Order: sequence, then C-alpha cells, then structure tokens
Amino acid sequence: MDKALSGVTILDFSHLLQGPFATQLLADMGAEVIKIERAGSGDMFRGMTFFAKWVGGSESPNFLAWNRNKRSIALNLKSRRVHGLIMEMAKKADIVVQNFRPGVLAKLGYGYEDFRAVNPRIIYCSGSGYGEDGPYVERPGQDMLIQGLAGLLANTGRGDMPPVPAGSGMADQIGAMNMVYGILSALYYREKTGKGQKIEVNLLAGMLAHLAQEYVGVLNLGEDFVRPNSGIGHPGMQAPFGVYETKDGGYVTIAMSPFRTLYETLDAPHLAPYDDLATLFSQRDAVWQKVNEETKKFDRDDLLERMLDADIWCAPVNDIRRAAEDPQVTHMGMIASYEHPKAGTVKVIAPAVRMSETPPAIERPAPLVGEHGREILKEFGVSDDEIAALEAAGDMTVEEAR
Amino acid sequence: MDKALSGVTILDFSHLLQGPFATQLLADMGAEVIKIERAGSGDMFRGMTFFAKWVGGSESPNFLAWNRNKRSIALNLKSRRVHGLIMEMAKKADIVVQNFRPGVLAKLGYGYEDFRAVNPRIIYCSGSGYGEDGPYVERPGQDMLIQGLAGLLANTGRGDMPPVPAGSGMADQIGAMNMVYGILSALYYREKTGKGQKIEVNLLAGMLAHLAQEYVGVLNLGEDFVRPNSGIGHPGMQAPFGVYETKDGGYVTIAMSPFRTLYETLDAPHLAPYDDLATLFSQRDAVWQKVNEETKKFDRDDLLERMLDADIWCAPVNDIRRAAEDPQVTHMGMIASYEHPKAGTVKVIAPAVRMSETPPAIERPAPLVGEHGREILKEFGVSDDEIAALEAAGDMTVEEAR
Repeated sequence: MDKALSGVTILDFSHLLQGPFATQLLADMGAEVIKIERAGSGDMFRGMTFFAKWVGGSESPNFLAWNRNKRSIALNLKSRRVHGLIMEMAKKADIVVQNFRPGVLAKLGYGYEDFRAVNPRIIYCSGSGYGEDGPYVERPGQDMLIQGLAGLLANTGRGDMPPVPAGSGMADQIGAMNMVYGILSALYYREKTGKGQKIEVNLLAGMLAHLAQEYVGVLNLGEDFVRPNSGIGHPGMQAPFGVYETKDGGYVTIAMSPFRTLYETLDAPHLAPYDDLATLFSQRDAVWQKVNEETKKFDRDDLLERMLDADIWCAPVNDIRRAAEDPQVTHMGMIASYEHPKAGTVKVIAPAVRMSETPPAIERPAPLVGEHGREILKEFGVSDDEIAALEAAGDMTVEEAR
Repeated sequence: MDKALSGVTILDFSHLLQGPFATQLLADMGAEVIKIERAGSGDMFRGMTFFAKWVGGSESPNFLAWNRNKRSIALNLKSRRVHGLIMEMAKKADIVVQNFRPGVLAKLGYGYEDFRAVNPRIIYCSGSGYGEDGPYVERPGQDMLIQGLAGLLANTGRGDMPPVPAGSGMADQIGAMNMVYGILSALYYREKTGKGQKIEVNLLAGMLAHLAQEYVGVLNLGEDFVRPNSGIGHPGMQAPFGVYETKDGGYVTIAMSPFRTLYETLDAPHLAPYDDLATLFSQRDAVWQKVNEETKKFDRDDLLERMLDADIWCAPVNDIRRAAEDPQVTHMGMIASYEHPKAGTVKVIAPAVRMSETPPAIERPAPLVGEHGREILKEFGVSDDEIAALEAAGDMTVEEAR
C-alpha cells in the first residue's frame, strides 16, 4: 500500500534523540531517510544505553528505538570530496534535518544557504536546545536541563521533597514532534508555491508550548503552583485527582470524577463533608490521605473493577514490563519487532497513528554505521571507482553485519 | 506574509485538550479553524481552571491556552437542520477533527463515512484515549490515567516514595502532536493523489511511542527500571545525572558530563574513587548524596556559573513565574499576549517553531462561545433569514463580548 510521504527524500544529519525521532516519524510515513553519520563511530547515541547492558551484546537500545526505517551512510563531513557529493545529493533531496549545536554544521559548509544555493526548494530544519541566538546559544541543551528551565520539573513531585523530572525524555521527544510539525507544514507550502524555507526548532520553546495551560494559569491568575504534599497528581488540581495505593502494594490513578460517586463507591460516606470544590482544593492533602486509607482496603484489580463499574475515571499504574502485556496495548499491536543483523529480534514500539489509506509501517531495522553507503551513492550516480576511492581515503566507512 | 497552511479549512468538533491543541497548532500555521461547539455552554474545557480562579473573572486559562486563532460557531448537533448545514460546509472543507468518545459523533451523523459521502477528499482525524476498538474502548481516557497505564508515571519520582505523574498533561499534548503529524502527512498525500482518508490517534499509543527507548531497553535488556532513592534524574541513569540542592534553597540539574570535571569543579577530589561507569550506576544514590553535599556549599547562580565555565551540562530549576522571566525565554519572545473581549490582556505562549518564509503567528484571541457563528454561516452562503431561524430555534447560540 502507498505511504503518505512516499517519494520524499531526507538528508538526515541528526544525532542523539530529537532529530532521529523526528526523521523516524517521517520514515514511518514512507519518507526515504538517508542518515548521514560520522565515518567510523557514527551517531553518538550508539554509545548510549541503560543498565550498562547492550542489546545482542553490542547495540544501543536508545539508538535502536529511534532509527528504524532509515538507511545509513557514514561520511567524513570535513572532506571536500564528501561535501561535493552531498551537494549533488541535495539537488534531488527535499528536506535536510540536523541538530548539531548552532553554527557547527554551517561552518562545514552544510548550512541552509549552502543547500539553498544548489536547491531552492530545500526545506532545512535545525534543532537545538535554546534556538540559534540569544544568551544561552553556547550552552549545552539537554532534555532534563530543559525540563528544569521550563518549569515542568518544578511542577512534578511532592512539595515536601525536591522536584523531579519526568522519567522520559519529554523535552527531546516534543522537540522531535515540533520538527515534524514544521517540516510537514513547510512541505505542504512548497507543494503550493514551490518555495523551500528554513525551520528552527528548539527544545526550550517546544517545552514551553506544552506547558501553555500552566503558564496561562500562573501568568494570568496571579498564583503559583505549589506541589502537593501527597499523591495529588498535579499542583493545580484538587482532590481526589491523583495516585492511590492498594492493599496488594499496587497503585491506581483516579482523575476527574464526582467526589460523591467516589466515596460512595469506596463505602466511605464519612468523606461527604469534604465534597465541595474549595475544600477539595484547600484540603487536598488531607482528603488524599483519607481516600488513600480507603483504597488500601482493596486489591488493585478489585478496586479498579469497582470504580470502573461506577464510571469513575481510573486506571492501573503499570511499570513498563506490565504495560507491555496490558490487554489494550496488546490489542493495538503496539509491541512490534524487527530483525537486526547484530541484535537479533528487537522489540520496539509500533507507529502510534493509524491511517486508512496510508498506514505507517516498520520496514527496516535501525541501520549499522554506514551500512547502506555504497548502495546510496550508486543510486545518486556515483561510480564504483569513486566509492572505492572514498573508502580507501577513510572518507566513508561501511559496517557490515557479522 | 504567507502562512504555510493558508487556504486549509478545518471543521473542528474537538474539545478539552488533545484536539484543541492540535487545531491551534494548525491555526498558528494559517489554517482556517472553525471550532464547532455545543450550543449554549460550548467546549467543556471552558469550565476547567486552576486555583478555583478565572481570568478576567470568567474565562478558563486552560481554554485560553489552546484556542487562539480559531473562530467559534455554537450549534445543536442533534438538529437535522444543523446537520444539513455542516454537510454543506464540509463540501468546502479539507479536514475534520474530533475527539469525542469512540462512536459518539458518528451516531449523530458526523462519522468519517458521512463526510466522505459529501467530500471524498476530506481528511478525518479522530482522537481517543485508547483507540476505537479493543477491551478499553468504553473506558474514560484521561491524561494522568494514560501516564499511569503506559509506564511514564511508574518511571517518575523516587523509589522510596510512590511514583508521580509528570506535572503537565503530557499524554494529551503528545496526542495533539500525533494528530498534527497524521493530518499533515495525509494532507501531503492528498495533494499528490487527491485522496482523503481517516486517521485515528489515541493517547495511549502516542504515550507508548514517546517511551520507545524505555520500552526497547526493558523489553530487550531483560531488566526493569527501578526509581532511584535520591535526586538521580531517570531510573535508567547513573550518577551524577540528576537534580541537586544549592545553599540558597534552589535546585540545579546536572546532565551528562565527565564525572572528573564535575568533582574538580566542585573542589571535591575525594569523589574520585567513584569515577567509573559501573560504580556510578550501582552506587548512584550514595554518589548523589555526596555530590549534593558539595552543591549545597554554593548559591545557585554561583554554582551554575562555575559549572558552565567548565562546560558541565547544567541548568537552573525554575518555577513557571521565574521561567517566564528567564533571559533566553525573554529573548525568544516566548511570552506573548492577545487581547480578549472578556479576559482583557491574556499572556500566552508564542508559537514554538520559527519558519523563514511562513512564520506562525497569533492573530486572534480564543473565541467566545459561538462568537463567529453568523459570519461563518454567511461565508458559506447561508441567508440572514435562515440564521435568524436557527437562533430562534436555539440551534445556534452566539455569545457577544460584554
């Protein structure tokens, strides 16, 4: 079946998380993503892992997560010969993506103006931590730093403990989605007008945009968020919204539901006196404690069944292993896999969006470093002799499956 | 200047957060978003707020945050006359967006097949909590519930305390980005082929996709994340990655940096024995304690200056009010405002993505309920008499500025 972005070619200089997740999303939709890695070691994320362990003994789970459906070519970007080749490729490309620190790639001759000179239709998307100018332009931009700067971190956790970051790279991942948003908007515009353009995405601005309702609240209501001293689930929310313990040591979430329905369902009529909005906000920690005493009388699954029967908005708190076996996750086919030449069968997350005409799909594993260099250059008309010369000079490296 | 999505018309049945954020992102890029609200009270999110306060005494910060650049028409969707009008409008529209519970809108005659029958080019995007089939299809889908189900919540917070949700509606907001991703991919495909399609986005699948590296780690490395009993910033990370206290009661984040550089910068050579990856992981809580003893010897800004001079990846932890005054946030112009007829000057977050040819912009405040109903219907050729009849029957309501 067709893919939505079939025929779109992306030269992808990006590394780490933000850029690679963005180009994977585009690749899932059928774009031809040519991942241009550093000759030799490739994307720095190949050296990143959890638990000091490696998939198949050698491969990074982080890299495997964000680089399927791409082909890789590993080049020495400082070589003039390589520069000439990439500019030839750019004539036939639609999009360039990069997330080096501001100015780094332009210094090597791969800035927007360089590509525009050979292909005015090019869409060039840069990702950075803090944008391409301003007081922080030289600072390192990293996910947790951005969560802290933007206010997500201060909004997370308990008031009687230090604040905590969200346990996943939200700023990076939102940055990736913003790249996709900018690129696809620009692609539509180019279809209409023939004009390419430059897009700048940064992690800090993206994180702020996702905190829009918290900012609009604080900046217009004249009150600051104070983290609750209990399991209340957001510093702006009243009880019972939050996370509760169960008898068997589990946790459940309870969101917006009429408080009366909740205390009746828990057989706890003594909670009735708290049932007005002002009290549920001002005494939220005390109410949380009292509700928690009740939820701890039930095992997790019994409690959930009882509450769902009463149409209370609730759900289990799963760790990742348990979530992977959740009936709805399984039903949706969200745990997929691909075969990787070194890592073997790799379990990954399937595309999240369903489309009736152009379903996204997993068609390739994450590539080895420069695995497809030779075939890519041949497709762009480079001769076998030139390819051999590039490799001999160390300007292109090719990792082959064991 | 042009906008990237100028000329694209969206019939937006969505409410609450996921759909409205998606259509605001499209509206910022120039799409003409017609927000179709319930006659009378409008979008349920108009009744949502923080701190039990209202902007200008009456307006919801949550609604104000996600609905700029749209016009509103408030209609009784159960009226056959209204149904006929909307189907006429659909002939000239490009995209329909909705996030009612699965099946609700189709029962009223506004499903994909209904729109497709009058306009085969239509792109119809549905958002839901758990998708449109499967064991959870009848369950309430809400942001915190999804964070809990998908594993983000269990991955956030300390091991010696219950887990906590991220302090912002990440699942909803990521759901919005996935709508944008699907819609713009489909729009490009339609430009190429003339074909519309149906897109399904759900919060659970979107959240899983953002946890891809955590899932790939757990499912392929055979180890589970265990939340740290300290300020370490991610359950998969080693020290020093985390949040640290300062002498003046502030916090800083410290991300990936050579440990040696850190202990030298802190004048703490006694930390040298911990400097290998295995130890920094296995003894991360102890190392965090020791580093934290050092960071508490400095005031926040002094510590940051010292660490930034040594190129240590670090940043301050800001609350939202402080973040709004951050020099880089200010430099980027991220705190913007619009004039609202009832709320007055409303501070909001500016568009996060910069584009050289088609910069997104804020051109309208969030609308009142049905504020633009009459002008919208006139643009679609409805007569004054018909409009008056609709209003007289209560099938359309118009809120006017005080």
